[in-house]
Amino acid sequence: MVDNCDVLIIGAGPAGLMLGCWLARTGIKTRIIDRRAEKITRGHADGVQCRTIEIFQSFGMAERIQKEGNELSEVVFYNPDKNGILVPTLRIPDTEPNTSRFRHVVLTQGRIEDFLIDCMEADGLTVERSISPVSLEYSEDPAETHPITVKLEHLVPVNDSSDASSGLYRSNIISQSVETPSAGVEKTEEIKAKYVVGCDGARSWTRSQLGFSLEGDSANIYWGVLDARPITNLPDIRVKVVLHSADSGSLLIVPRERNLVRFYIQMGTLQPGEKLDASAQSPQKIIESAQRILTPYTLECPEVEWWSVYEIGQRICKDVSFNNRVFLAGDAFHTHSPKAGQGMNVSMMDSYNLGWKLAACAKGLANPSILDTYAKERIEVARQLIEFDHKFSRLFSGKPAVAESEGISIEEFQAMWVRMGKWTSGTAVKYEPSLIVAERSVGKAQLARNIIIGSHFESRMVVGYADAHAIHLADRLVSDGRWRLIVFAGNMENITQLQRFNDLCDRLMNAEESPIKKHTPPSADVNSVIEVLTLTSSPRRGLQYAAFPELARPLVGKFGYPTYDQIFSDEVSYLDGSGEAYAAYGVDPNGPGCVVLVRPDQYVSDVLGFERCVKKLGLFFDGFMILDGPKCG
Amino acid sequence: MVDNCDVLIIGAGPAGLMLGCWLARTGIKTRIIDRRAEKITRGHADGVQCRTIEIFQSFGMAERIQKEGNELSEVVFYNPDKNGILVPTLRIPDTEPNTSRFRHVVLTQGRIEDFLIDCMEADGLTVERSISPVSLEYSEDPAETHPITVKLEHLVPVNDSSDASSGLYRSNIISQSVETPSAGVEKTEEIKAKYVVGCDGARSWTRSQLGFSLEGDSANIYWGVLDARPITNLPDIRVKVVLHSADSGSLLIVPRERNLVRFYIQMGTLQPGEKLDASAQSPQKIIESAQRILTPYTLECPEVEWWSVYEIGQRICKDVSFNNRVFLAGDAFHTHSPKAGQGMNVSMMDSYNLGWKLAACAKGLANPSILDTYAKERIEVARQLIEFDHKFSRLFSGKPAVAESEGISIEEFQAMWVRMGKWTSGTAVKYEPSLIVAERSVGKAQLARNIIIGSHFESRMVVGYADAHAIHLADRLVSDGRWRLIVFAGNMENITQLQRFNDLCDRLMNAEESPIKKHTPPSADVNSVIEVLTLTSSPRRGLQYAAFPELARPLVGKFGYPTYDQIFSDEVSYLDGSGEAYAAYGVDPNGPGCVVLVRPDQYVSDVLGFERCVKKLGLFFDGFMILDGPKCG
Repeated sequence: MVDNCDVLIIGAGPAGLMLGCWLARTGIKTRIIDRRAEKITRGHADGVQCRTIEIFQSFGMAERIQKEGNELSEVVFYNPDKNGILVPTLRIPDTEPNTSRFRHVVLTQGRIEDFLIDCMEADGLTVERSISPVSLEYSEDPAETHPITVKLEHLVPVNDSSDASSGLYRSNIISQSVETPSAGVEKTEEIKAKYVVGCDGARSWTRSQLGFSLEGDSANIYWGVLDARPITNLPDIRVKVVLHSADSGSLLIVPRERNLVRFYIQMGTLQPGEKLDASAQSPQKIIESAQRILTPYTLECPEVEWWSVYEIGQRICKDVSFNNRVFLAGDAFHTHSPKAGQGMNVSMMDSYNLGWKLAACAKGLANPSILDTYAKERIEVARQLIEFDHKFSRLFSGKPAVAESEGISIEEFQAMWVRMGKWTSGTAVKYEPSLIVAERSVGKAQLARNIIIGSHFESRMVVGYADAHAIHLADRLVSDGRWRLIVFAGNMENITQLQRFNDLCDRLMNAEESPIKKHTPPSADVNSVIEVLTLTSSPRRGLQYAAFPELARPLVGKFGYPTYDQIFSDEVSYLDGSGEAYAAYGVDPNGPGCVVLVRPDQYVSDVLGFERCVKKLGLFFDGFMILDGPKCG
Repeated sequence: MVDNCDVLIIGAGPAGLMLGCWLARTGIKTRIIDRRAEKITRGHADGVQCRTIEIFQSFGMAERIQKEGNELSEVVFYNPDKNGILVPTLRIPDTEPNTSRFRHVVLTQGRIEDFLIDCMEADGLTVERSISPVSLEYSEDPAETHPITVKLEHLVPVNDSSDASSGLYRSNIISQSVETPSAGVEKTEEIKAKYVVGCDGARSWTRSQLGFSLEGDSANIYWGVLDARPITNLPDIRVKVVLHSADSGSLLIVPRERNLVRFYIQMGTLQPGEKLDASAQSPQKIIESAQRILTPYTLECPEVEWWSVYEIGQRICKDVSFNNRVFLAGDAFHTHSPKAGQGMNVSMMDSYNLGWKLAACAKGLANPSILDTYAKERIEVARQLIEFDHKFSRLFSGKPAVAESEGISIEEFQAMWVRMGKWTSGTAVKYEPSLIVAERSVGKAQLARNIIIGSHFESRMVVGYADAHAIHLADRLVSDGRWRLIVFAGNMENITQLQRFNDLCDRLMNAEESPIKKHTPPSADVNSVIEVLTLTSSPRRGLQYAAFPELARPLVGKFGYPTYDQIFSDEVSYLDGSGEAYAAYGVDPNGPGCVVLVRPDQYVSDVLGFERCVKKLGLFFDGFMILDGPKCG
């Protein structure tokens, strides 16, 4: 029995589940399998960065993270004073101002996965567990629509409590092989897929099938990690603490949900070639290391919820796609140390980058060449991550220079921490020009000084024209696979500008060269492939809602209901401020306006003036859209 | 078979479910029954006022209303100009500034009930449906702990689609009797209860058992109500519209969730003694009335989700409790017209007022005399509501004075609307002195100029001392049955003030006269009956966390974990403003400080200076707490 699907996702951790959310939301026939019989509940990753929460918001579930997680507010650095006594040396916000409308939150990976699973299931996709892939074959036949064949074994689950207990931190100890516990094979199955994505972690089966490998090195330093409810006289146990002791090693404290605290604790060094001895580790040993480092502060941990030991190392896979048919995402292509809270986030960002592209290709809407941008965009991010972590983790594990002693510079470390704040928040990612990211230019930058082509579209508060709601503009950039044209319409009380805007809308709606005209199926709503969002600089009273052209407030659905959520004003709201969007985006409120093309994943593809913009947009979409392909899944 | 329970709730509408949430949360043995086989899903009430959302927040579920509901931002008044043509005459925010941190939201009653049910079920209480009470007996025997016997019939449910279709608006047409549809009686059952609460609506069975009746009158005017997705050229269909036409009647438009719009539409008048003919009503008739009133604007409603017709009337029951054993709440004791969005809100507020008192009595902690305050506090609110609605609904239904014609004054109506904004938000409720609300005095008012004894404790942003979180102080006033002492500690960098604060905490923790000492069971955590929340005017760096007295950061639980969420600073947070709490509460940041006693339902019981406050608090609690009663349920 062979099952055909568009996409097979191997591995239901954060990367796999994020991909599942995209594919389920966009209606792609998908299967997602995992070898484990049970999902994790405790321990593992826990940092949720700003940009990740922005993406959760685009799927309509950010509030779940905010409610359950612990928002981090402050970071305190403790270092030895000139007598070697630990003192706080710097106190800064954990999220730098103007990074995002969201803040870093800490919440166990298990709950993040729960939210993704709920989102996916609401769109009809469920994880299939206790399934292990055993072979992957690829057909070169160009007529084959589903060229990949994967053989699966349905395992008989055993009662696996390895997770609830503890163990080595899997994503970093890649040399250690962990067999899937099973009581045998129940049945085998063959799947034929258009695409396969390996989200199967640091010891990725998919990666080994492709013959790819992780490359990198290890620092021969190992750390312990512990989730516990501590009793301590350290006054800063509920903020993030970054601590270098004079002689006993370093420590990171991350206060968590449910009064938990995560400790990252420097344990020791390994000789070159020496392997970390898992059997010699225990929570007691980790706590003893922490007590030494924290002296003179006390620490007791009556309840330990999870613990692990990991070796510092950075490894990356230089190939992440095979023929644009099989892809790797997350730990399968990059592993590093966990303390900067990047792992789970960058992994989800990988598959978030890939999801909408796969969906467009699986539907026959886009040319597979857009899949090239996945490797290009994400390998660069992974490379930066590895480079950052290499430096960061060595500074973190270094003995500080105290008084005249030799050691790492605490000032350099603290400065690096602050400087990297935007980068670690995930909001600094900038994709380079490609089929789907236009070249930057001085002229474009003048139209919208603070909108960067290749970066994500930053959110600002605006006011709904029809409903007077103050809302974040990014709340309209939902992850549903649609492109958006954000039209900075300018001052609608200026007759000339209003006429220019009306002309633009008319051409976008009716000109043969318009991508909306070309790529929207005749039977579909005009906003179903590219949605136009209009932001006026003039207030709501300047022009009646009904006076806007139809493209700005299209009639949709069976009954032709007008839409009321596509036009916004940059005015001051009754109760929530706003009125600063044009200034923040760097667009002249009395100028000629501009058009910002935003990808389905919220990254800015291009910034254009009104003139000839319809033709230019048409050519841009011609670069990767299939004109005569099937128009709807 | 007789089942004993502490509280029997009859009726699982908003009032009954809110009560269920309280009793389940506080661990009271409760049953909640409803005659209907199915809960409602469409139509009925939909306005959720600010104060109601504050209370939902105290149960940890406000975000569900905010996410699903439509937040109202603006109200526009349309009135005839001097030629009788409809024009907008006033545009104001729907929630006045400084009313609450929340806004009015519109969401169908069915979803509000779902949230309450989920909350209740998380604490182990489930609605039992298709159960009808048939008799209620009361035993005068003072030795009887469960003096009320209620006989129940478990009905065989029939497929009742009366709700999904439509009908008369039940809560107002009290003369109309609606039988519980059933295919017979499956079994009967007897319950013996300490308390019974009738939350069974305008035609309350409980009320009739007590021999109480609703009194009031009707305006002989009837209105239609309709939930639909409209197609209209009225530009303001997504904000609230309050409209008086010159000659065709009045209309209210409330934009809803899921692109629905609720219309309240004036239909006609009845002759004295004439009954509204239900069979003559239809959605078409309602839409035709709306079209007449809205002229020259057009209106089509291709999809009607729910409709009803109701007669304007106000009725109130002057007795709401029998021997402090049987109570009425919600529509069972007051009915009125729905347009001000008060019904569902005031009903939930009734049972929210009652719940914690019943819990304290059922546990034997408080003297039943506190139950007297339920009738006293809520009858006054109901009386104000009836008085307001009587005037409001007549002005709403009145023909406006246009040019020289006779009629109601639009200016008066608009002014009343604005003036009543705080009242209709639910935040203006002020309870009068009683066993649990102290007398006001000039001296107390000077300690905290903007904290009103008898009003709810208003929320301000403060900064968590231990975690640097900017949080709303009211987020710590959770509905768990505990009293709170909010200590405005003042400036902790002033040694004298610090010493005064330390002395206060010492006396509260150790003095025999302290209510904490008297009423906290020896085996329980010190914060389990009265929780102390400390707000300093000095910044977090002014005094180390560990330097606060133990009462302010008590050690709790089996392992004696320190608490980190009871001390706050009125400082500017990193990212969220704040630092204005002392000013907003009207407390001198460099003064002697004060203590605010807050009831479990967030209403302020008293404001005291530090001097002799422990003794005064002890005497206050002596007024209603049972010293030698069982200390825990």
